[in-house]
Amino acid sequence: MLVGSEGTLGIITELTVRLYGIPETILAAVCPFKTLEGACNTVIQAIQLGLGIARVELLDEMQIHAINHHSKLSLEECPTLFLEFHGTKVAARDQVENFRALAEEEGAIQFDWAEREEERSKLWKARHEAYWAVRSTWPALDTLATDVCVPSSRMAECVLETKKDIEQIGLVAPIVGHVGDGNFHTSPVFDQNDPEQRKKVEGFLSRLADRAIAMEGTCTGEHGIGQGKVKYLEAEVGSGVNVMRQIKQALDPQNILNPGKIVP
Amino acid sequence: MLVGSEGTLGIITELTVRLYGIPETILAAVCPFKTLEGACNTVIQAIQLGLGIARVELLDEMQIHAINHHSKLSLEECPTLFLEFHGTKVAARDQVENFRALAEEEGAIQFDWAEREEERSKLWKARHEAYWAVRSTWPALDTLATDVCVPSSRMAECVLETKKDIEQIGLVAPIVGHVGDGNFHTSPVFDQNDPEQRKKVEGFLSRLADRAIAMEGTCTGEHGIGQGKVKYLEAEVGSGVNVMRQIKQALDPQNILNPGKIVP
Repeated sequence: MLVGSEGTLGIITELTVRLYGIPETILAAVCPFKTLEGACNTVIQAIQLGLGIARVELLDEMQIHAINHHSKLSLEECPTLFLEFHGTKVAARDQVENFRALAEEEGAIQFDWAEREEERSKLWKARHEAYWAVRSTWPALDTLATDVCVPSSRMAECVLETKKDIEQIGLVAPIVGHVGDGNFHTSPVFDQNDPEQRKKVEGFLSRLADRAIAMEGTCTGEHGIGQGKVKYLEAEVGSGVNVMRQIKQALDPQNILNPGKIVP
Repeated sequence: MLVGSEGTLGIITELTVRLYGIPETILAAVCPFKTLEGACNTVIQAIQLGLGIARVELLDEMQIHAINHHSKLSLEECPTLFLEFHGTKVAARDQVENFRALAEEEGAIQFDWAEREEERSKLWKARHEAYWAVRSTWPALDTLATDVCVPSSRMAECVLETKKDIEQIGLVAPIVGHVGDGNFHTSPVFDQNDPEQRKKVEGFLSRLADRAIAMEGTCTGEHGIGQGKVKYLEAEVGSGVNVMRQIKQALDPQNILNPGKIVP
């Protein structure tokens, strides 16, 4: 019950962590696609086949552009999957070969994989710096990070509609997706002091949340409701908000735990 | 929050089910061991290696005896693992070979695996009838089913101590474990109308719950708290019982949802 309660129900003072062993083999791969749709569909098919990808991240061409700029790389600026496969030597290579076959059918331009830790780290370092890459590529502007989550089966649809929205309104908003979980992020880049730009971004964020909810998803995957997304919560969970409020009142009658968040 | 609340907080009226595809290859295996310890240790090692076993069930020699009797089989009456491996053809066979290597080091007597659906079904049918096998092997007596759950790393220790307890007090109580989850069941067989036998079983159940809690586990994995295990709940969750009671009161002020269960 505390997971996702954003500090409104209690304070976690102790955690027990479940550890997983480091797999015998870890293979990292980069796979650029002709289309965003091809990249999304490959991931959905791989999940539906139970291929067992350990990590899979989608970056659109705008995000790759920012990463190239920031990390001095020369990746092809198109929708790209970053992947990791874990297992025994035999199993990990089997996953890679199966994934390659799916990707090629969906318009993958190439498929490079690496086993050496150094090369793997270089790939993932670029990915982890995605947010800073956006900041440093448009240094004069502000960045607002947001995310939504939809069922895997609706993920391609949601990413594509969002991309279309971004293009239609002429927004700079790179997309990074933890697509294996149906979760994706976008970071609109704009001037906070320009009321027109702010209005445009607000409209975009509102449509993004509505879109995810309409697809049986959630208005936030990792970022949380906080204050900014309180306005979407009722559309998402309906009278569930009342249940959340009752629990909040039962456990925090004086409203001292992160007041004003989730259920103000 | 509703999962595990045993009907005390609300009624589930709608569920969304996440489906997984049927794997390309399913291999079923039976693996009898010289010792219960060897069987448990093999499972723990396989989990810690991230071998990816889809199903693994432990049956002690008393349970195998009952299954032989009930299903007209002639399995060797010793601690036995029933397993299933899923994946592509290559990955599933790789799992089987890795598992075999671990099992042989821990005293596996043999290791038979089958891919054909008919043979797989025969194996699992016997497992699924475990409870009825106990009933039909000791038809004049009563059976009481119970379960506990401990962290995987303590599973061998908990099963072995429980087995020792069963032997020391001369109880008939076959063990079946969903050992991949650290969860195991036992079904004491006794005469409910004999006060001395009843007392013996009650003492055993109480020690079993205390043992699991002392090992940072829970007094029930699947069977639930209900009424019978209310007495262990406070030892397990401490003042957490008060939080549970506050939530129950907030959501069910008239106490009409499965009253008297979990937090009476």
